[in-house]
Amino acid sequence: MNTAQTTLQTGPAALRELFARPGAVRIVGAHNPLGARLAERAGFDGVWSSGLEISASQGLPDTDILTMTELHAVAESLASAVGIPVVADCDAGYGNANNVMHMIRRYEAAGIAAVSIEDKRFPKVNSFMSARQELASVAEFCGKLAAAKSVQRDPDLMVIARIEALIAGWGMDEALRRGEAYVEAGADAVLIHAKGSSPEPILEFLHAWRLPTPVVVVPTTYHTVTADELAEAGAKMVIYANQGLRAGINAVTETFETILRDGRSTGVEDRIAPLSTVFDLQGMTQLLADEARFMKQSA
Amino acid sequence: MNTAQTTLQTGPAALRELFARPGAVRIVGAHNPLGARLAERAGFDGVWSSGLEISASQGLPDTDILTMTELHAVAESLASAVGIPVVADCDAGYGNANNVMHMIRRYEAAGIAAVSIEDKRFPKVNSFMSARQELASVAEFCGKLAAAKSVQRDPDLMVIARIEALIAGWGMDEALRRGEAYVEAGADAVLIHAKGSSPEPILEFLHAWRLPTPVVVVPTTYHTVTADELAEAGAKMVIYANQGLRAGINAVTETFETILRDGRSTGVEDRIAPLSTVFDLQGMTQLLADEARFMKQSA
Amino acid sequence: MNTAQTTLQTGPAALRELFARPGAVRIVGAHNPLGARLAERAGFDGVWSSGLEISASQGLPDTDILTMTELHAVAESLASAVGIPVVADCDAGYGNANNVMHMIRRYEAAGIAAVSIEDKRFPKVNSFMSARQELASVAEFCGKLAAAKSVQRDPDLMVIARIEALIAGWGMDEALRRGEAYVEAGADAVLIHAKGSSPEPILEFLHAWRLPTPVVVVPTTYHTVTADELAEAGAKMVIYANQGLRAGINAVTETFETILRDGRSTGVEDRIAPLSTVFDLQGMTQLLADEARFMKQSA
Amino acid sequence: MNTAQTTLQTGPAALRELFARPGAVRIVGAHNPLGARLAERAGFDGVWSSGLEISASQGLPDTDILTMTELHAVAESLASAVGIPVVADCDAGYGNANNVMHMIRRYEAAGIAAVSIEDKRFPKVNSFMSARQELASVAEFCGKLAAAKSVQRDPDLMVIARIEALIAGWGMDEALRRGEAYVEAGADAVLIHAKGSSPEPILEFLHAWRLPTPVVVVPTTYHTVTADELAEAGAKMVIYANQGLRAGINAVTETFETILRDGRSTGVEDRIAPLSTVFDLQGMTQLLADEARFMKQSA
Repeated sequence: MNTAQTTLQTGPAALRELFARPGAVRIVGAHNPLGARLAERAGFDGVWSSGLEISASQGLPDTDILTMTELHAVAESLASAVGIPVVADCDAGYGNANNVMHMIRRYEAAGIAAVSIEDKRFPKVNSFMSARQELASVAEFCGKLAAAKSVQRDPDLMVIARIEALIAGWGMDEALRRGEAYVEAGADAVLIHAKGSSPEPILEFLHAWRLPTPVVVVPTTYHTVTADELAEAGAKMVIYANQGLRAGINAVTETFETILRDGRSTGVEDRIAPLSTVFDLQGMTQLLADEARFMKQSA
Repeated sequence: MNTAQTTLQTGPAALRELFARPGAVRIVGAHNPLGARLAERAGFDGVWSSGLEISASQGLPDTDILTMTELHAVAESLASAVGIPVVADCDAGYGNANNVMHMIRRYEAAGIAAVSIEDKRFPKVNSFMSARQELASVAEFCGKLAAAKSVQRDPDLMVIARIEALIAGWGMDEALRRGEAYVEAGADAVLIHAKGSSPEPILEFLHAWRLPTPVVVVPTTYHTVTADELAEAGAKMVIYANQGLRAGINAVTETFETILRDGRSTGVEDRIAPLSTVFDLQGMTQLLADEARFMKQSA
Repeated sequence: MNTAQTTLQTGPAALRELFARPGAVRIVGAHNPLGARLAERAGFDGVWSSGLEISASQGLPDTDILTMTELHAVAESLASAVGIPVVADCDAGYGNANNVMHMIRRYEAAGIAAVSIEDKRFPKVNSFMSARQELASVAEFCGKLAAAKSVQRDPDLMVIARIEALIAGWGMDEALRRGEAYVEAGADAVLIHAKGSSPEPILEFLHAWRLPTPVVVVPTTYHTVTADELAEAGAKMVIYANQGLRAGINAVTETFETILRDGRSTGVEDRIAPLSTVFDLQGMTQLLADEARFMKQSA
Repeated sequence: MNTAQTTLQTGPAALRELFARPGAVRIVGAHNPLGARLAERAGFDGVWSSGLEISASQGLPDTDILTMTELHAVAESLASAVGIPVVADCDAGYGNANNVMHMIRRYEAAGIAAVSIEDKRFPKVNSFMSARQELASVAEFCGKLAAAKSVQRDPDLMVIARIEALIAGWGMDEALRRGEAYVEAGADAVLIHAKGSSPEPILEFLHAWRLPTPVVVVPTTYHTVTADELAEAGAKMVIYANQGLRAGINAVTETFETILRDGRSTGVEDRIAPLSTVFDLQGMTQLLADEARFMKQSA
């Protein structure tokens, strides 16, 4: 892997270029560089630095318990590991407009292509939980968006405004009204989130959306609709936000149970990646070539 | 989950207690708290904070590229997430005897039950690579072991001396000779490592080992032998070092490829954990109960 | 330095013991382990892990821009460097009651003797700034205190409730009312903060305070009153919160200006510590002795 | 402070520009962003991210006990805090040629203008200590330099080869021979280090140096010679490596002792910076202006 070359394709300009192409940009969730590499190898357009995946991987609730420092470190590690853009889930922006400004400086320095902030109050609760889902006022959230846009250096860095009105049960009109206000405040894209099993509310939003600003969707619970169908309805980016994490949980559980039951790993050997694949994914071949080229021992 | 209670069972005393029981202690590799929780739920006795898993999860070679800071942070996160002991893979001790002393202070403060250091020179290369496998002199490594033992506060903290003589092709006599020297220098256990597909060399070592000091084994490549067979031959701890990582790689790859091919996740939904399992593993239920108990809004 | 021995005197029990003695406990602010060592050598009873010092040392405003991760890391580094207790300034608790619970688990694991949380809303602004000083409701803050007390494992860990009513201009009655409510919610001590140049409001609070719960004071702006006078008035702990940082700023500025003006450091050599003092403070002598004892080279 | 603008002047190109000017570039040591800001305000051309200062500030010996992760984090924090270039002291490169390549990628991503690596074996001991000072072979160190140069993306990033031959007592010829070999291997500058009180050896080296490659000097112990005299003798950069740290140690010690003796801080108030200076240095004024512009409360 040529790190130098790949990383040049990771930043804001690369994502803007993907948005300029026809069809929907497809990105997938990861919580560590290995997952980001698997996303790249599978052919995804980019990586979603997922707050749910990262908090779950740390064994902590997805309710702003992890700090910006921790989530930023993961996002940075993803961006340095792949040659496709990374979009960072930044929850509610980690506080107020001042925290958002600090956040933008840090994420931009980390080579992130886009950040997403949601219109919930800090600390938030994961959108799929049946729990308090408190929305910030439109004025407060627009202040955060304007603050974010005021400090970025690279004009290509995208700020995605995530609308939680449908999650909070405030209705379609509120969702549309908020989306429009967020665009006016400077958002480069809106993300309309929903949690039912039917894609209908999302398709309705896409149908009603009149602005040229792109719309992002996350078909986690309404998974029967395809990326092409969503693109046709007007979605510009589709995020498969947490399926990798969930696949890993089941596979690891089955592997662990089999090993304990059998007292050995023989029964899982044909279902798990060989060591050679692990070495390949972590760049061991390149490293050994570098050693041969540069490593001289003290006489 | 009762964090207070579980963590009390994570430390050095808990591991000593496991070693005092008949049969082999079985532990399994993890690279993040989620993996550690899955290990605990599956019923393993402890968790192996695996250098190979952690470096691979970070997309970096397993050759002392990650620093002690990074590996220690992961080990600490594992120990704080589960109620079973964590054994930390500490490579070659991150430098010389001074580095080892600093390392012991940090790992002990992190609640780790045992550390393993190997008799390779720093920086090392993963044992399964066909590459330079340079051993430290017996004198140098014994100095590290003595240094380690001199700074621990809790007498129960175990220092495991990992013998790489078979990996480096120096033969069985050298492996035994080193093991005995390491015990004399203060090691609480020895780990005999090998990479062939047959368990014979390991069984031969166990047969020839005369000291009461416990022996640890890692049946990664010689996986057909069972934990019971290894215990019967004299092994006291069996480490399944990296199967979880490798299970995850295959499962995530298949999931990502299916989603891209189908344009939706419907085809994998019955193979991936539901969101409710994710929430459960990250402690969301406990958090919501805590909220109900303690969270009052400003009037 | 015997790390093992000193650290045993750093934790919650050591601070409780200091509180049990007659007179006021005197602690001083630091933002790194070197400052903590200087505090210990000067003879202070403990170290204040100061939010203002830490944020200023990082060149960032004292308004919850630094995250718990960053402030916790500094507090932990202080506690591991000295043999006197560390009291951690935890601002407003980094969010809601859930964040506070997570915070307590992390700070307790770091060996901190006491934490202080203040009754401002998150994100807060430094108390000495003429800016918004928004107080949380009594109910909300008492929920945080109860949450904090519910998760600590070591009963000696102290939770200090910092009252900002005088800072916010809400008056003495409100300050006393809040202090009493906080004690009822579980606070082990209250910190009454003020920013005028006269100690009068503080002395008035101490006079009016009827509960046996200890009171902590921070004579930054009202610096003419002595620790003995404050103790006589009823204060149990006096925090000199940021004088070290401020001394360093002036000394470094003068040194830098002199070097640039003279083109050499000769003019400051008699005012700056010799290298031998630096080596002594960082434990180089002990390290070289350890090397002589444990370090053997590979043949 | 306009972060966007200042940081553009921090990188490799800015340092190259300084090297292109007549006279010596003057930089000064720091161990946190506050120190870097004081350097910038005093008028220094750049900041030296000093290994000695950083390890001492952490209360740990300057012998590769701190890891690259920790030293890199500080260097990054300095670069993000000022508008002048940061030169990073990278000790012996944290291991072998592979570690150096990883190091270059990380420091370049952090916006560092130049890195310095020294020809000692890992782990090293601070050059001013009367202790083992082991040099790497010329072949091994040239391999590290070539490895470093092979991975940088920005051609302006400078790799400074630090020659420890005089420190180790190997003599002037060896120092010159090594310097020439390092230039051939790709070094952009050489740093000749010495620890006597006379500048003679350094002046002799400068006199004998025939290559156009710039030479860097560190007049810590031989402080009577001025930057202008060193420049006239051929030095291109002068590093005042640790005077700030040493000034702080004395000032903080005196302040702490006075406070304890007097029971109050009144006696030091006119010698320590006022709070307004602290607020100014940490950017509080800008933050409050940002709040007024962007912060709207929820209704």
